[in-house]
Amino acid sequence: MQQIYQECIDECLRCMQACNHCYDACLKEDDINMMANCIRLDRECSDICSFSAEAMARNSPFISEICELCANVCEACGKECEKHNHEHCQECAKACFRCAEVCRKMVA
Amino acid sequence: MQQIYQECIDECLRCMQACNHCYDACLKEDDINMMANCIRLDRECSDICSFSAEAMARNSPFISEICELCANVCEACGKECEKHNHEHCQECAKACFRCAEVCRKMVA
Amino acid sequence: MQQIYQECIDECLRCMQACNHCYDACLKEDDINMMANCIRLDRECSDICSFSAEAMARNSPFISEICELCANVCEACGKECEKHNHEHCQECAKACFRCAEVCRKMVA
Amino acid sequence: MQQIYQECIDECLRCMQACNHCYDACLKEDDINMMANCIRLDRECSDICSFSAEAMARNSPFISEICELCANVCEACGKECEKHNHEHCQECAKACFRCAEVCRKMVA
Repeated sequence: MQQIYQECIDECLRCMQACNHCYDACLKEDDINMMANCIRLDRECSDICSFSAEAMARNSPFISEICELCANVCEACGKECEKHNHEHCQECAKACFRCAEVCRKMVA
Repeated sequence: MQQIYQECIDECLRCMQACNHCYDACLKEDDINMMANCIRLDRECSDICSFSAEAMARNSPFISEICELCANVCEACGKECEKHNHEHCQECAKACFRCAEVCRKMVA
Repeated sequence: MQQIYQECIDECLRCMQACNHCYDACLKEDDINMMANCIRLDRECSDICSFSAEAMARNSPFISEICELCANVCEACGKECEKHNHEHCQECAKACFRCAEVCRKMVA
Repeated sequence: MQQIYQECIDECLRCMQACNHCYDACLKEDDINMMANCIRLDRECSDICSFSAEAMARNSPFISEICELCANVCEACGKECEKHNHEHCQECAKACFRCAEVCRKMVA
């Protein structure tokens, strides 16, 4: 049972790490005023990715709804991150879009 | 801004506590076989209620979607809890239905 | 059983809200460069407060250790917040110090 | 910076999955009365492992204290799980002890 979720769990946990790394790096940038929305979305995204991974791992009855929410948050975070040239933002955007895609596949 | 969420935050946090109390009490019942689904849903519900309360408190851009998910989980948990005569289950069911109602009002 | 934790749960949940409110408000300040550490600690503190409240509500076997960690994080967050004149920071500092005190009392 | 935490993040996330899988499987056993403590500790452990992984990924200032708590919870969960012959319990015990060991190494 759990195996069918494994790819999605893995992407959520990769995305959680990328978002938290981006969040930490944004808070250390010289000018963080322009990173405010990125910091905010990184937190939103890492938290829902972590929540989704736990939900799948415990075989929650609400996996579809949780993964749909997760996909939406990942897409919003990816769109914000890809606007910024910092490597941590570009890496994070990639992880977000990949995670959103796998979550959508799971829901379908 | 935050004040418009206060009623919903309060209900989510009350429901989180009722669900966790019910979870703890279920695990101490003499026959917990029939409480398995209640234990499972109590955890699901307390975790999403806690997540929703934090999301509202930080003015998340995803409050509507999160509260809709929260309402669905609360209703499922309330329906399971109200089947059982234990006081902790009946109390929990009430908290779940109240929280679901306030979450739905917020989303609308 | 749960009642002996109620005061501590209440303070943790108040502090969680104050920290998340301060975090949101910091991200909207004109100059957020000087708020970077406050943003970071607000998130640390709201997350451990939320975690502690859930742990107490479910009668976790690790309440003492969790509340000790929570007290330490609250104190660090309070010390950072009290440096800033914004009302949200001053309010947050008060909530942090109050929560730290109640957590310490619980552990003792 | 983040790389030095990677081994510990990886173990925490593996342990989070093993604990949640064990929790789900325990709730499906024929006689779950004897699994009550295992269910309880699986949840405690998966939640602190998830919390610790996020904390490390965001370069939290409280990593040492969080990982020390995590190690204690992992050990308690591992000791409970290893008492039961179910494969999911034995697998979970191994993941818990490995995670505890890596967390202790990180703290030292």
